[in-house]
Amino acid sequence: MKTIKEGEVRRREILVAARELFVTKGYDQTSVNDILKIVDIAKGTFYYYFSSKEEVLEAIILDIVEEGARRAENVLKDTSIPLVNRIMIAIMSQAPEFEGSNEIKEEIHKVENTKLERLYLRAMLKRMTPVLENPVLEGIDRDIFHMEYPTECIESILLMGHMMFDCDVFEWKMEDYPRKIQAFLCNAERMLGTKEGELNVFLNMFGQNQ
Amino acid sequence: MKTIKEGEVRRREILVAARELFVTKGYDQTSVNDILKIVDIAKGTFYYYFSSKEEVLEAIILDIVEEGARRAENVLKDTSIPLVNRIMIAIMSQAPEFEGSNEIKEEIHKVENTKLERLYLRAMLKRMTPVLENPVLEGIDRDIFHMEYPTECIESILLMGHMMFDCDVFEWKMEDYPRKIQAFLCNAERMLGTKEGELNVFLNMFGQNQ
Repeated sequence: MKTIKEGEVRRREILVAARELFVTKGYDQTSVNDILKIVDIAKGTFYYYFSSKEEVLEAIILDIVEEGARRAENVLKDTSIPLVNRIMIAIMSQAPEFEGSNEIKEEIHKVENTKLERLYLRAMLKRMTPVLENPVLEGIDRDIFHMEYPTECIESILLMGHMMFDCDVFEWKMEDYPRKIQAFLCNAERMLGTKEGELNVFLNMFGQNQ
Repeated sequence: MKTIKEGEVRRREILVAARELFVTKGYDQTSVNDILKIVDIAKGTFYYYFSSKEEVLEAIILDIVEEGARRAENVLKDTSIPLVNRIMIAIMSQAPEFEGSNEIKEEIHKVENTKLERLYLRAMLKRMTPVLENPVLEGIDRDIFHMEYPTECIESILLMGHMMFDCDVFEWKMEDYPRKIQAFLCNAERMLGTKEGELNVFLNMFGQNQ
């Protein structure tokens, strides 16, 4: 017989099962009943934690933001990596495609789901900007970066990176990407006030993820 | 008795009437029947041109993009305005809030309508980037701007301006705006490779539209 589980544990179980189902069966093809079967709970229990399947997806998206931010934080802790590289790797490791979340990412990017995309973007910007503040301030201290508005510079780089490369707002063709990535890095360098070409080393890393 | 009107004229009439209704009554409160009454057409005629009320709103959004681009083009023709000012005024005059479209703008920005916002953003970027290309190239020729990626620089400035100030993606508080606008202009200056402080003259203009 089951004992009454703590709320957070039960909520987690639902999220883990739903995420697995969304990834394997697809979001549309997954019903609340499918989730109930795996977690082995009654419908009422599900609706105690979530008001709908969509709310589950929203919670999963916030989890994805959190996981990305933690990856970035871990990269930033590794002081054996030179500072500029550490910051750029942190930004790139934050992106959800690094974690096999592609099916959920596709769900976020469907036209009818731009609401979820906005949810992701807002949460990501809020969570990631403070994560990058300290290393950028360190770069200013160490005379690597030169800028008056560090927070706003980070916000701009995160926003542009997401909208351009994650969210495909320009609908660029495959062959446009090398130039677009080069231009993005050049603009990031200028905003950070670092040496021209400082970020060139990231061209390949970016390229591999297109 | 009515004569058979040309398709484009009829379609325009529907758009004008619907836009007026969306602005005065609100989008949700307007029915297809309300539109029919004003244009004085049968339901079948309406559905010949549009499959739904939402499709009408989509067409209106594309009209708004077109109107904004034309305002920008007119500003850019006025060579009595110094080039840098002309470009910035063109960008600002493009934004829909200059034309009393606030009700429709609100509609675009509702959470459930982020699909429409995306439609607006994609159409605006596509239409406005080429509009700004010539003046920016002129600025490079005249040694005012210095950059390797003019198209991408324009794309980035349009994208950031829209997401930050039109679309409220950061959910900034009122008191944050002066600093955020200053930072935005500073980042735009750096991307354009122009003199520091060159765009300061626009602080007030921007400020007035918050």
